[in-house]
Amino acid sequence: MNVEKEKKQDAFLLRELSLPEDLKKLDTEQCKELCREIRAVLIKTVSRTGGHLASNLGVVELTLAIHRVFSSPEDKIVWDVGHQSYTHKILTGRLDKFGTLRQENGISGFPKPMESEHDSFVSGHSSTSVSVACGIAEAMKLQNKKNYAVAVIGDGAFTGGMAYEGLNNAGKINSNLIVILNHNDMSISKNVGALAKHLSNLRSTQKYVNTKVAVEQMLKKTPVVGAPITKAISASKTAIKGMVLKGHTMFEDLGFIYLGPVNGHDIEELDEVLTLAKTLGKPVLVHVNTTKGKGYLPAEKNPGEYHGISRFDVVTGNSEVITSDSFSSVFGHELVDLGVYNERICAVTAAMKYGTGLQFFAEKFRDRFFDVGIAEQHAVTYSAGLASMGFVPVFAVYSSFLQRSYDQLVHDAALSGVHMVIGIDRAGFVGEDGETHQGLFDVPMLSTIPGVTIFSPSCYDELRTSLRKAINESEGLVCVRYPRGNENAEAKDFSADGEYLEEKNPGSETLIISYGRISSELPSVCKTLLKEYDISCDCMKLVKIFPLIDECIEKASLYKNIFFFEEGMKSGGIAEHFMMKLYSRGYRGNYHITAPEGFIKQASVKSQMKKYGLDHDSMINIVKNNL
Amino acid sequence: MNVEKEKKQDAFLLRELSLPEDLKKLDTEQCKELCREIRAVLIKTVSRTGGHLASNLGVVELTLAIHRVFSSPEDKIVWDVGHQSYTHKILTGRLDKFGTLRQENGISGFPKPMESEHDSFVSGHSSTSVSVACGIAEAMKLQNKKNYAVAVIGDGAFTGGMAYEGLNNAGKINSNLIVILNHNDMSISKNVGALAKHLSNLRSTQKYVNTKVAVEQMLKKTPVVGAPITKAISASKTAIKGMVLKGHTMFEDLGFIYLGPVNGHDIEELDEVLTLAKTLGKPVLVHVNTTKGKGYLPAEKNPGEYHGISRFDVVTGNSEVITSDSFSSVFGHELVDLGVYNERICAVTAAMKYGTGLQFFAEKFRDRFFDVGIAEQHAVTYSAGLASMGFVPVFAVYSSFLQRSYDQLVHDAALSGVHMVIGIDRAGFVGEDGETHQGLFDVPMLSTIPGVTIFSPSCYDELRTSLRKAINESEGLVCVRYPRGNENAEAKDFSADGEYLEEKNPGSETLIISYGRISSELPSVCKTLLKEYDISCDCMKLVKIFPLIDECIEKASLYKNIFFFEEGMKSGGIAEHFMMKLYSRGYRGNYHITAPEGFIKQASVKSQMKKYGLDHDSMINIVKNNL
Repeated sequence: MNVEKEKKQDAFLLRELSLPEDLKKLDTEQCKELCREIRAVLIKTVSRTGGHLASNLGVVELTLAIHRVFSSPEDKIVWDVGHQSYTHKILTGRLDKFGTLRQENGISGFPKPMESEHDSFVSGHSSTSVSVACGIAEAMKLQNKKNYAVAVIGDGAFTGGMAYEGLNNAGKINSNLIVILNHNDMSISKNVGALAKHLSNLRSTQKYVNTKVAVEQMLKKTPVVGAPITKAISASKTAIKGMVLKGHTMFEDLGFIYLGPVNGHDIEELDEVLTLAKTLGKPVLVHVNTTKGKGYLPAEKNPGEYHGISRFDVVTGNSEVITSDSFSSVFGHELVDLGVYNERICAVTAAMKYGTGLQFFAEKFRDRFFDVGIAEQHAVTYSAGLASMGFVPVFAVYSSFLQRSYDQLVHDAALSGVHMVIGIDRAGFVGEDGETHQGLFDVPMLSTIPGVTIFSPSCYDELRTSLRKAINESEGLVCVRYPRGNENAEAKDFSADGEYLEEKNPGSETLIISYGRISSELPSVCKTLLKEYDISCDCMKLVKIFPLIDECIEKASLYKNIFFFEEGMKSGGIAEHFMMKLYSRGYRGNYHITAPEGFIKQASVKSQMKKYGLDHDSMINIVKNNL
Repeated sequence: MNVEKEKKQDAFLLRELSLPEDLKKLDTEQCKELCREIRAVLIKTVSRTGGHLASNLGVVELTLAIHRVFSSPEDKIVWDVGHQSYTHKILTGRLDKFGTLRQENGISGFPKPMESEHDSFVSGHSSTSVSVACGIAEAMKLQNKKNYAVAVIGDGAFTGGMAYEGLNNAGKINSNLIVILNHNDMSISKNVGALAKHLSNLRSTQKYVNTKVAVEQMLKKTPVVGAPITKAISASKTAIKGMVLKGHTMFEDLGFIYLGPVNGHDIEELDEVLTLAKTLGKPVLVHVNTTKGKGYLPAEKNPGEYHGISRFDVVTGNSEVITSDSFSSVFGHELVDLGVYNERICAVTAAMKYGTGLQFFAEKFRDRFFDVGIAEQHAVTYSAGLASMGFVPVFAVYSSFLQRSYDQLVHDAALSGVHMVIGIDRAGFVGEDGETHQGLFDVPMLSTIPGVTIFSPSCYDELRTSLRKAINESEGLVCVRYPRGNENAEAKDFSADGEYLEEKNPGSETLIISYGRISSELPSVCKTLLKEYDISCDCMKLVKIFPLIDECIEKASLYKNIFFFEEGMKSGGIAEHFMMKLYSRGYRGNYHITAPEGFIKQASVKSQMKKYGLDHDSMINIVKNNL
């Protein structure tokens, strides 16, 4: 009841309007009021659920303007990456459920067509929106629809090569594709590369020109598109103050009409430039300057910290972030220690310096640290280039984003035979970010690649050892994968110095095998099985999971029953590879695999573990029920 | 002996010189003579071995100039895609072996560090060179080496997003990175997209300006780099006629100094522009105009036909290309037939219109055909965008190049649940192109993706049926994979209407399973085993290979011995998936997998089949030796 009351106080206009249609009827003051209300909802909700805050606060006016000028769902709005779609969700019928953001069975933190007809396409990974919007715009053309496809993409996502592939193909789409560049001058790490400089120059330009003159000039440079534009310009009531037509931008080389930059927090300017964009009859790029965290001071001051945030106190801005060690920070510190003694070690990140714990290495060894932007393909092949000259590059990347580099891993890393290391962070369940971010594909993906070595430590000590082995005692492409967050309390008690570890009970005919963080549960699972159910089990933890260790296969083959628990996709996973090895050496006992299949929905990691049979109690039940 | 004699006649200067060092001593006339000799070797060799001809004839002068101005192997030359590296091979100690081009144990058609220290990095896939060169250049900087990293990349490869990721990161490399844009205005299909237009505008520009003035102007726009440049300019003996400094190019936005365009067949111009590029102290992009097929009239006239060519008659230019049907053309024609009745079908290619047989669809349904350039990532996500609007896109692509799209297949195709089809051409062994082009990873890669369906027809009829099923009777992401070339003569006799097919002999305890083109051998293998060795075997061909058909697992489980032959990587392949299914339903018989592991080297397909136990005789031997 209390929550309901609060919501209503927060969101008066929001609740009165029929959304998104009524947005078109609002005057500027009402729009401003609505933006205030939306910001209050965003701050309050994210403070309770965690999520992406800074990026959402930055696009409140922009989202409002998009829904005022375009008509969703007939016009299709495609949110790149998608973590900035909260306002869009609030404005398209999901205010009531917004409190369930990122929770099990709740509203997703990313666009989902299953959730609403206003979410035109799924997203979560970077730089896909232009390609999706091209497809949609082309489809509209074939269907003789007069609607628009609108891609909203940040300057960070623009560093991904896929965005460029989309832009390069957009020129063919004649009249109904609009790309909105949401320029907040900050991706998750500080934006890098030449394009960032180019955009920053545009962003900071002070040349204000009269819209009409400017557009006329621009039209001289592009094929004549006739009356509608002249009309649109004449109808323009005020000059768009921020609109500047540069002599030239890169986007014009790519076939776009470039409009901007405009102030992304000025509803009137946004209305006007988007309305103009609709009339130009060519692909248009609208450059919008926004401020991440806008309207909430702690987030404006520290947009990086409020990018993805845990629950926090609204008044103080203090978040629940656990400041103790995490796998990422342990990885980062260990790499620094190794870097002191080995000058050949380099660190590479794709715009995730802080997320991957590489900030320590970056501070200490500025020359040997490389942030290449959101460009995972380049990151792998660039690393391979460094490696070909005798360096040992360590590319730290989230499991889910490494998927972008499959071909480069096969063709540039593995085939060339160079020695390089991939630090795979967020491997396993990631919880509330849901399907698009699960780190469950890396093992099946990597184990198709000839010559790859994969370590999957379960605790900090094993991570340190694995990283040392990967760098100092390995050849070729070596991956070290570890989960998001912290090690289990029990992890150290069952940590391995070598490549695997066993724990035995007298007379066991059953072996439980696992790897990664869930393997630290195994001794306790065995203890409970013995104590409560009189089932004697041995357990085996793998640290080097690929290629499989012959000795482990040999030892496992002596058991009547084997249970393999895997926090990774079943199809093509290690449990299956282990089984194949066993079978080919004659094993014919009982073999039971527990591993997730299909795409895994948002929930807490704890809940996901339980649901897929990988938590302590589930393991016990699965063993006793299948003996 | 005769061949030796011919070689010497062809290559007089080539044989006299100590290469590549002596190149620097030649005068212009000697260079021209050498180019003539090289072209003669290229034409003669490729007419006998098959290979890439047009692209190699186009870069003879350019390659010569690179080796005159730079010093390999200290300076590192990185060939993008790599199929244009023949002259480079001839000039770096491989003239004697050049007759073994693309043959088993012979010279590779692509750069290979194992083959020569002058091949600085492996290549075969498109758009990787800038990333590799960035890594090498950065490594040189860290090592205080004063050498250069030179990427040579065609305008076709520039449409790949990875090239852009590389360019965007090149700005950080201060002084020793040079990107040579080899502009021949034609990738494998006609080049597409806005960038192609932009480059063409640059290419055709007629503004000739004085080099010195131009470079001075340019330097005003870039931070001062001091005396060396002024010196270099003063030392310049002639004006570089083709060098134009535009007011602006896209490359300048990306942090490059742009030089060009220069005539790529004029040794003096090339010498001069490359020498200048070395002195500028910033990343330089040199725009070189070349003519594909230069110096051999049939290739100049039909560069597409002479891109990758079989053996041909030098005098007439007629190639051995078999003009009868191929899997590609059958696919193309069937898609046209389906397109007539279903207006929702669209066809998408990544610069492989002819290679994939889509030219027929393109002619018939111009509006529904999309060539997106060498941009496999975009192609998949663009298709998903089309599909989200109710179309059924069919993206036809070579197996090896589909690897570029793994993340898009997971995240944009499978997760979104849209119905789209991938036509996977060149699936299986590809023969002489070797490791980089083998179509052996698609099945393991795709079978990690939830919800994917894969058909692997063995003959034309099955391809037609599979494509119809994929388009008209399937949901989600559906792949149809088929090999390069023609169906086996025997294929029709064992072709399936349904999703699998069996052939039984009385009292068999042994089952042989396979899919794809090799499965057409199964009846004959069984016949021989019975007749010559008195071994009665049944056989089963799978057409739908994923997800596996329960009925097939059930039937197979009744056999004492199962042999699975797979033309695809063993790790994560269908044979392993089949085994897992069998085991989980209690099968404990003998199961024997024959499938390749590791990277597969160049040889004829026939030889590769034999080596990996997948030809008719090998199958027989494997079965009889393992019973």
